Amino acid sequence: MSELRREPVTRTWVVITTDHPKGPSDYLPFKPPYRPQTLEGPCPFCPGNEGMTPKEVFSIREEGGWRVRVVPNKFPFFHIEGGFDRRAEGMYDVMEGIGAHEIVVESPRHVDRLDTMDPEQIGKVLLAFRARLVDLEKDSRFQQFLIVKNHPGVFNPHPHSHVLAMSVVPKRIDEEIWGTLDYYQRKERCIFCDMLKEEIHAKKRVILETLHFLLFAPFASRYPFETWILPKRHVSDFHHIAVAEVEDLSHVLRFLFVRYGRLLSDPPYSIVLHTSPVQGRFHRPEYHWHMEIRLRIGLREGFEWGTGLFVNPTPPEEAARYIKEVGME
Amino acid sequence: MSELRREPVTRTWVVITTDHPKGPSDYLPFKPPYRPQTLEGPCPFCPGNEGMTPKEVFSIREEGGWRVRVVPNKFPFFHIEGGFDRRAEGMYDVMEGIGAHEIVVESPRHVDRLDTMDPEQIGKVLLAFRARLVDLEKDSRFQQFLIVKNHPGVFNPHPHSHVLAMSVVPKRIDEEIWGTLDYYQRKERCIFCDMLKEEIHAKKRVILETLHFLLFAPFASRYPFETWILPKRHVSDFHHIAVAEVEDLSHVLRFLFVRYGRLLSDPPYSIVLHTSPVQGRFHRPEYHWHMEIRLRIGLREGFEWGTGLFVNPTPPEEAARYIKEVGME
Repeated sequence: MSELRREPVTRTWVVITTDHPKGPSDYLPFKPPYRPQTLEGPCPFCPGNEGMTPKEVFSIREEGGWRVRVVPNKFPFFHIEGGFDRRAEGMYDVMEGIGAHEIVVESPRHVDRLDTMDPEQIGKVLLAFRARLVDLEKDSRFQQFLIVKNHPGVFNPHPHSHVLAMSVVPKRIDEEIWGTLDYYQRKERCIFCDMLKEEIHAKKRVILETLHFLLFAPFASRYPFETWILPKRHVSDFHHIAVAEVEDLSHVLRFLFVRYGRLLSDPPYSIVLHTSPVQGRFHRPEYHWHMEIRLRIGLREGFEWGTGLFVNPTPPEEAARYIKEVGME
Repeated sequence: MSELRREPVTRTWVVITTDHPKGPSDYLPFKPPYRPQTLEGPCPFCPGNEGMTPKEVFSIREEGGWRVRVVPNKFPFFHIEGGFDRRAEGMYDVMEGIGAHEIVVESPRHVDRLDTMDPEQIGKVLLAFRARLVDLEKDSRFQQFLIVKNHPGVFNPHPHSHVLAMSVVPKRIDEEIWGTLDYYQRKERCIFCDMLKEEIHAKKRVILETLHFLLFAPFASRYPFETWILPKRHVSDFHHIAVAEVEDLSHVLRFLFVRYGRLLSDPPYSIVLHTSPVQGRFHRPEYHWHMEIRLRIGLREGFEWGTGLFVNPTPPEEAARYIKEVGME
């Protein structure tokens, strides 16, 4: 049998097949989408090769050198110079690709992962994210920030993430924003705050609850073992995160990725940090920053791509149970 | 440099990087997402093994047996029995996964492709699509049809496509429908009819124009070498296609896939047929059925997934030129 579940924010229907739920072993070994890549030549992200990258914009240093380092991407999606130049091309709309595209080098170690880093190092990465958004917010051309981490990285296995600032709001984020606004207008409550309460009450999709965060498998998980991390405090912008929350979140991330590693032996994944649009607002009562984590396993490329029809053979209740109960001895 | 282009129907911004446009050779050999799969045991789609599939719902036969065969999927996303049962689960919406999920076996030959089939055989596949939609339209529970072909197939390399009928409209199609309606309300014209005229006028993204169809690389191509096929006649429903159009479309598909094969040596791809929602309407003046074709190469998984931010390093003008001009000797 299967069930259609609606993701409440963007109102996307997801098919959850429930009769033969797939567990971790059904995804191993990883099928087509995954092959670790290797780097030709010296790694520009390793200590000693700092000259290979554009000039550093931020770093956290300790005796012995940098621990986290942020540099402009050498092959950016957007460029920082220039004006908007919105224009028509026939019936179409075009504008220049203005924006920032920076790389956060997450560790001096060429081989390192969220499940092998200590939480203190993860905390430094989060502090680097915060510092960069605080700085980039000053540029009034930017409407939206995105922070994305792909593991393994597409071009370089050295652990890194992308910080993007752009002059448009990408589709999926735009849908999310409209969904939260619509919910707020009807109920005068934040949909993510409601979701926090609902999940804590329902229990069965919760993986970990800490002082400041909830880690859970979302009700309409589009992907097997998809997880979300929500801060309990209603804050629309990630870069208003407090130091105590950074510490807590580092432990939550470490907890999660150690368990993913146990369950699925170092699966490829993406983390996307969703934070409020920047322009023309103070605090948004309807938006709530959060992280969405997806393992890049078990893809049905053609369906999701062309239709937005997601089919997930691992119900989130099962996923939560697997992740929570995996043997840690 | 890069350029932001807006896909006019769903109004999705796409980043087209224009400074070092990637040609076919930049995508070869195929990176992580692709590995051809093999089937364990006998193929249920091969002649002689018809007993391995659920009972046939349609076929086209000639002396010597079937040429195209349609069977219910043994592992369906949706099941045909049952009622709607829409209900709440806490704050969330759920319904039963009612629908049809059929497989069109496109050829008696286990190894066959759109570039090796003759156009007549491709025509039979299109006629099977038409026949199934005509039949499924009678079931008033269905709101939307989808036809998707993945090459190579995920579980079986024998050429086949999926016909889905479902009780909800998937996200991406829903966005498209709202986009077309909004455009129609402002202009009283179909956006796809306008696009046809625009592309024929601009020339630079057109790959092939026939009596009934236009094959082109869309202005805001989300993926390298993405192509769309639009019928010149305004029809909202694919299953109202005329026989002369079927013949023409078979040649267009063959033309395209022979060229994709030359350019990129049998690339993995998905074809999605977009057709109007079914329920409660006659002819829709604002919707225009069409095919969207995407090669599954050069993916930047994390970005597209989490954000809807598409980054395409092959501008559609280049893609059109490559496909049109590839040597056919």
